[in-house]
Amino acid sequence: MRMLLKEIESFLEEDLGQKDYGEIALYTDCKAEITVREGGILAGLTEAKEIFDYFSVDCSTEFKDGDRINSGEIILRVSGLDAKILMAERLVLNFLGQMSGIATLTRMFVDEVRKVSEHVKVAGTRKTTPGFRKYEKKAIIIGGGDPHRSGLYDAVILKDNHINLMGQEPAIKKAKELVSYTQKIVVEVESIDEAVRAAELGVDIIMFDNMSPAEVKECVQVLIERGLRAGVILEASGGINMENIKDFASTGVDALSSGMITHSARSLDFSLNFVL
Amino acid sequence: MRMLLKEIESFLEEDLGQKDYGEIALYTDCKAEITVREGGILAGLTEAKEIFDYFSVDCSTEFKDGDRINSGEIILRVSGLDAKILMAERLVLNFLGQMSGIATLTRMFVDEVRKVSEHVKVAGTRKTTPGFRKYEKKAIIIGGGDPHRSGLYDAVILKDNHINLMGQEPAIKKAKELVSYTQKIVVEVESIDEAVRAAELGVDIIMFDNMSPAEVKECVQVLIERGLRAGVILEASGGINMENIKDFASTGVDALSSGMITHSARSLDFSLNFVL
Amino acid sequence: MRMLLKEIESFLEEDLGQKDYGEIALYTDCKAEITVREGGILAGLTEAKEIFDYFSVDCSTEFKDGDRINSGEIILRVSGLDAKILMAERLVLNFLGQMSGIATLTRMFVDEVRKVSEHVKVAGTRKTTPGFRKYEKKAIIIGGGDPHRSGLYDAVILKDNHINLMGQEPAIKKAKELVSYTQKIVVEVESIDEAVRAAELGVDIIMFDNMSPAEVKECVQVLIERGLRAGVILEASGGINMENIKDFASTGVDALSSGMITHSARSLDFSLNFVL
Amino acid sequence: MRMLLKEIESFLEEDLGQKDYGEIALYTDCKAEITVREGGILAGLTEAKEIFDYFSVDCSTEFKDGDRINSGEIILRVSGLDAKILMAERLVLNFLGQMSGIATLTRMFVDEVRKVSEHVKVAGTRKTTPGFRKYEKKAIIIGGGDPHRSGLYDAVILKDNHINLMGQEPAIKKAKELVSYTQKIVVEVESIDEAVRAAELGVDIIMFDNMSPAEVKECVQVLIERGLRAGVILEASGGINMENIKDFASTGVDALSSGMITHSARSLDFSLNFVL
Amino acid sequence: MRMLLKEIESFLEEDLGQKDYGEIALYTDCKAEITVREGGILAGLTEAKEIFDYFSVDCSTEFKDGDRINSGEIILRVSGLDAKILMAERLVLNFLGQMSGIATLTRMFVDEVRKVSEHVKVAGTRKTTPGFRKYEKKAIIIGGGDPHRSGLYDAVILKDNHINLMGQEPAIKKAKELVSYTQKIVVEVESIDEAVRAAELGVDIIMFDNMSPAEVKECVQVLIERGLRAGVILEASGGINMENIKDFASTGVDALSSGMITHSARSLDFSLNFVL
Amino acid sequence: MRMLLKEIESFLEEDLGQKDYGEIALYTDCKAEITVREGGILAGLTEAKEIFDYFSVDCSTEFKDGDRINSGEIILRVSGLDAKILMAERLVLNFLGQMSGIATLTRMFVDEVRKVSEHVKVAGTRKTTPGFRKYEKKAIIIGGGDPHRSGLYDAVILKDNHINLMGQEPAIKKAKELVSYTQKIVVEVESIDEAVRAAELGVDIIMFDNMSPAEVKECVQVLIERGLRAGVILEASGGINMENIKDFASTGVDALSSGMITHSARSLDFSLNFVL
Repeated sequence: MRMLLKEIESFLEEDLGQKDYGEIALYTDCKAEITVREGGILAGLTEAKEIFDYFSVDCSTEFKDGDRINSGEIILRVSGLDAKILMAERLVLNFLGQMSGIATLTRMFVDEVRKVSEHVKVAGTRKTTPGFRKYEKKAIIIGGGDPHRSGLYDAVILKDNHINLMGQEPAIKKAKELVSYTQKIVVEVESIDEAVRAAELGVDIIMFDNMSPAEVKECVQVLIERGLRAGVILEASGGINMENIKDFASTGVDALSSGMITHSARSLDFSLNFVL
Repeated sequence: MRMLLKEIESFLEEDLGQKDYGEIALYTDCKAEITVREGGILAGLTEAKEIFDYFSVDCSTEFKDGDRINSGEIILRVSGLDAKILMAERLVLNFLGQMSGIATLTRMFVDEVRKVSEHVKVAGTRKTTPGFRKYEKKAIIIGGGDPHRSGLYDAVILKDNHINLMGQEPAIKKAKELVSYTQKIVVEVESIDEAVRAAELGVDIIMFDNMSPAEVKECVQVLIERGLRAGVILEASGGINMENIKDFASTGVDALSSGMITHSARSLDFSLNFVL
Repeated sequence: MRMLLKEIESFLEEDLGQKDYGEIALYTDCKAEITVREGGILAGLTEAKEIFDYFSVDCSTEFKDGDRINSGEIILRVSGLDAKILMAERLVLNFLGQMSGIATLTRMFVDEVRKVSEHVKVAGTRKTTPGFRKYEKKAIIIGGGDPHRSGLYDAVILKDNHINLMGQEPAIKKAKELVSYTQKIVVEVESIDEAVRAAELGVDIIMFDNMSPAEVKECVQVLIERGLRAGVILEASGGINMENIKDFASTGVDALSSGMITHSARSLDFSLNFVL
Repeated sequence: MRMLLKEIESFLEEDLGQKDYGEIALYTDCKAEITVREGGILAGLTEAKEIFDYFSVDCSTEFKDGDRINSGEIILRVSGLDAKILMAERLVLNFLGQMSGIATLTRMFVDEVRKVSEHVKVAGTRKTTPGFRKYEKKAIIIGGGDPHRSGLYDAVILKDNHINLMGQEPAIKKAKELVSYTQKIVVEVESIDEAVRAAELGVDIIMFDNMSPAEVKECVQVLIERGLRAGVILEASGGINMENIKDFASTGVDALSSGMITHSARSLDFSLNFVL
Repeated sequence: MRMLLKEIESFLEEDLGQKDYGEIALYTDCKAEITVREGGILAGLTEAKEIFDYFSVDCSTEFKDGDRINSGEIILRVSGLDAKILMAERLVLNFLGQMSGIATLTRMFVDEVRKVSEHVKVAGTRKTTPGFRKYEKKAIIIGGGDPHRSGLYDAVILKDNHINLMGQEPAIKKAKELVSYTQKIVVEVESIDEAVRAAELGVDIIMFDNMSPAEVKECVQVLIERGLRAGVILEASGGINMENIKDFASTGVDALSSGMITHSARSLDFSLNFVL
Repeated sequence: MRMLLKEIESFLEEDLGQKDYGEIALYTDCKAEITVREGGILAGLTEAKEIFDYFSVDCSTEFKDGDRINSGEIILRVSGLDAKILMAERLVLNFLGQMSGIATLTRMFVDEVRKVSEHVKVAGTRKTTPGFRKYEKKAIIIGGGDPHRSGLYDAVILKDNHINLMGQEPAIKKAKELVSYTQKIVVEVESIDEAVRAAELGVDIIMFDNMSPAEVKECVQVLIERGLRAGVILEASGGINMENIKDFASTGVDALSSGMITHSARSLDFSLNFVL
């Protein structure tokens, strides 16, 4: 995924503004290196290189996005004009920090799930930072997760609000009528009955919303018993965290979606230092 | 602070895309309310109202940004076309969640500092999410903190990289020569000697970078002894957290800046429900 | 679907430029009406009203998008400042003409299909005018068709190029690994064998590409015989036109996608006249 | 005409969105060729090369815009990373298809006119697709036509609406007063009297609007008889098509403008295939 | 001419940035007035009102663009929230100052010309401030001048560089071939011979470039003598100023174009004061 | 300071529009040179080179921004495709003209000040052309001046309007409370009393607004006498011009800010000629 030039310039503008204090430099060629100060999963490296490339700063690294990195490792070496490196520095570090933070937390969730299941997926949500979702979703993928839908436009979820407003069956029928057959329809359910009806109405994904692991498990059993399990993807969502994720992963669903991996990920700590 | 229309539209585009699945609604007027699910400091309410206003959805609330809110409180009631409310929902909740999360963490830092000092400020950094800094800085202010500089353009910080590159005195001289007298010059220092020289060279702010509280305290003492404390603002930065912030606040500095309050704040949990 | 202000302004800029020859008017309030000069399906009316609304020109109509309209009918009456109506005129007519042209052609395809099938869908493609796809896809929906995917991002189609490059099975496996479970995977096939393998590998949609109706029919039969028809959507694509669409609609597939309904639709003829 | 980077990126965004399914490729260098599937006039080749250039994909061709091309000819050979070629493919084909379609239809109109006149021009109108006019006008030029004005800003046409509103003479006087002498003034006329008065008032271009060839011819004769033909350009517009264009071209006018060559041109059929 | 919202927001962003120091106000309704501190021609009033309107600040005035204003006159009274008025203030004053400065200087040139000629026009050039041409051209019109072409796109001038490069006759022929008949062709000439040939080749405008009034006069005479004056507009350009403009206006040309009226106009002095 | 690509493209669009009359050229490589026609201080050279670079036109020069240049000197030699040079020409010349004009006037002010003071600064204001401030401020720096604040966001000035509205002391207190400690607070004063109070309240800069040199001098004296001079920067503003600037520079202040150096600077005269 290549960043558009207009994205790079728009992010840079936020930091550089209309004045130019890059001038406080020697304007000589120099070298610098970016070090990570804590362990985690590397993400944002592609973007870091594209930002440096915008400034004609050369990069070299033995790492790639998705690699596990340890405190103290040099993850990128750059060389170029000091003033340019200083102008790129903060944007690069913010990309690395935010994206690696999300990738790292996602991997922790995935690793926890893998203790009990080979295939259950950890997915994101739309609970992201306005304007930065594209990169947050990419970080989830790098961390081993599934990005889930990008927005209202690439899958349709009938949420509690839709269903309270319109009724479950009318909502599903309206969605099937309005939504292209190239997109999936997801329905949030809060009870066994709702789950059964949704499956009978032929939706693509059933999302168990804000249920306990035990409740989810019971729903899955009922669907299996009634021969409704095949051909539908089951997802649990709501309140999933590091403590309970193994329980959710053992309920028989296919995927677990969590807002936490984006909205509550801590940034990973990176720093850039000149090599003199 | 009014959001520009182009900001609102750009954030909305990210979520709405080119398709229009707002149609899965009854297109009738209805009411909804936004509830907070955990305690904290409210921020993003102004933005929430502006986004709803863009969709001609009416808002009413007894809260304002900066209020302490408790789990279960309804912080905003809206009424308007169901399809419009559904289109605004996620962007509004993401603003409320992200900004309140930062405001809440900032307030925790400030409250901790207030236990030992009436006036020491808690400040942010440029460690923010690309494209969202304006709102993260505003959330810091709402939480009782100081936003610090917005970017490279509204204050000049001579960081370790500048000083390693150019030497402390040449760097300060070059900055004084190049930077408008309407802007402040900040210098990072890592030792008593550096601090003393910076003060003697007449900078506006001295930033003690990555020192322990004890080291900072000693530096402050030396500056006082040498009559260099007046007229210079002292700031500590690097590794400040909830555990050690009171110690830093007792060192005699004027401000403590921390990347954590933005890059590691958890989102606060809000939800929107229709009132039927 | 509300047009963003920035879309309206960007389209207007193309026509208005930097000079202002709206001044060649009396700057008095007046009335005008938009008449259609040939029969078809109305589309673009919502956009027309939003553009006039941008100029504070009032609109009234007894029509709505999707209505069948006949030559000579007045489809919109407006009142406002003459100069504003003249500035909006061409953009409004271009929206109405282009969108109604697509809706009309789509409806012709759909009507033809309905002669032999109640449920087979007529779908669009990505063969659209750069920058105007959103409105072309909307016009397809208004005409009774299915917009198909909006771009590379909201469904994945493994086309002949992917398959020639990677092989069918590796391509499907890679797609399943990389693509979110919230998106559908479509596979183009050119033979019975390819269709069978795709169905066995569990893709969401099989697209018969550039086959004759007879070949498509045979493929469908084979899938039914092997018990692979359930749970997969079948689509035919390539060379579908008004002459052969009934034959394709009788093959047993679920959908027929055609680039013609966008890239080769003639504009419908509308004109605006002042009422003096 | 070089495309602006921001144009290329904006068109690409429409197709690529926020996700990156270019990854479904081998990420190896490969070759591909673009073939035309029906005869016509080539246009959009310059844009195709610029889009590939954006992706660092190399191009070679023996054709240039304006060339007559025949079904089956390879009009462009490219080599580069498979994923990049796949990301550029649809945008490139849409540019080639739309622009060549317009150039081809324009050339058909021009060829028809050439049977009866060496110099009568075939011109476009503002009946174009919102946001794509620049390229549609360029395709007209490539096809041998005249782009006519680009928008309201680069020539002033007093249309029936202006004249009904203000009267012919006041409208022309107001235009002469308000419009820069660097721009031309065009007046639509619907009768001999109007044509004579317009010529007497010294406009630059007289446009016979929605008249039959016989009526136009009569108007031209009257202007010649009254010594008003010199120094004014005569244009016929309205209802011109392949059937009647030779008749219009024989009326003595200088130019024939037609919305059909843009708004009703069929796309020309191109495809891209990997060479393995 | 209505400002686009995106123009207003883009200009505001330049002044307001990412921080919000509008807060340093009482947030009460108040009144203010804008006074002019020196005499001149008012321009920018329309824009001033549109900017205040963006902030929901009410305006009233008895003036309109183009009025002669005297030192001390209140040209606009506004009422609204103090913080909003303060945010709009500088942008409004800069529009008024720059545009009125240009309108005033243009009027001085026009008044000087009117002493010797009723109809000779004073025209601008493309020597404008990047990004602000639209408003500079509008100010010329308000001052009584002619905006001349807006850019390379709305009239073609064959300048000395074109002619040196290609030769006069080939350049004119190429231009006639390439440029739409809806646009005018202007040719710069530097001698009588060049002027005669240009007129014979049938260009729309002949521009006498960097000649003295006496030389221009002679050229005009020769054109008249040879019967080439009719049907061509004559324009003098280069080195025209307040001292020599009457001489140029007496040469027999139709228009005088001058970069000075834009690039060397002094801003007119306006100030805004609260009425307490 | 590197121009963003989107800035270059936006400025170019203003001049080039949607048509492409660059075609009126030979499309051969050629050489051209830019000559200055009057003496002054060179500015805009960096931008000129970046614009030519955008068009792949090569540049060479022995000058740099800030150099004193004399009439007739060739300040830039370029070589590249004739059509590209012609497309870049006007934008380049407008940058050079506007920026050098400001740099030249600034240097005249500075030179005048240097006759009486070694260190008093000449500063700009926000009285700039909407959309071009960044380059006007840069030209001030190149001319030897101080850019002053860029906008409302990078320093806070309490102007007469704030003070009339809120009272001096409340305004200062509110500002100190609301404004980050990383920004400076400036207060406009109109009397000795106001100046004394402002100094006592600890502001960063006191701006003597619209006072005579004698009044300013008296204020400075009183501040010195009361021991309030240290630690505060003193600035005079309002009505400063070439005639009185030496008097102001002798009053004891640190800086003199003047809107004239931007809003009333004449453009410097440059021209581009092909070398054949």
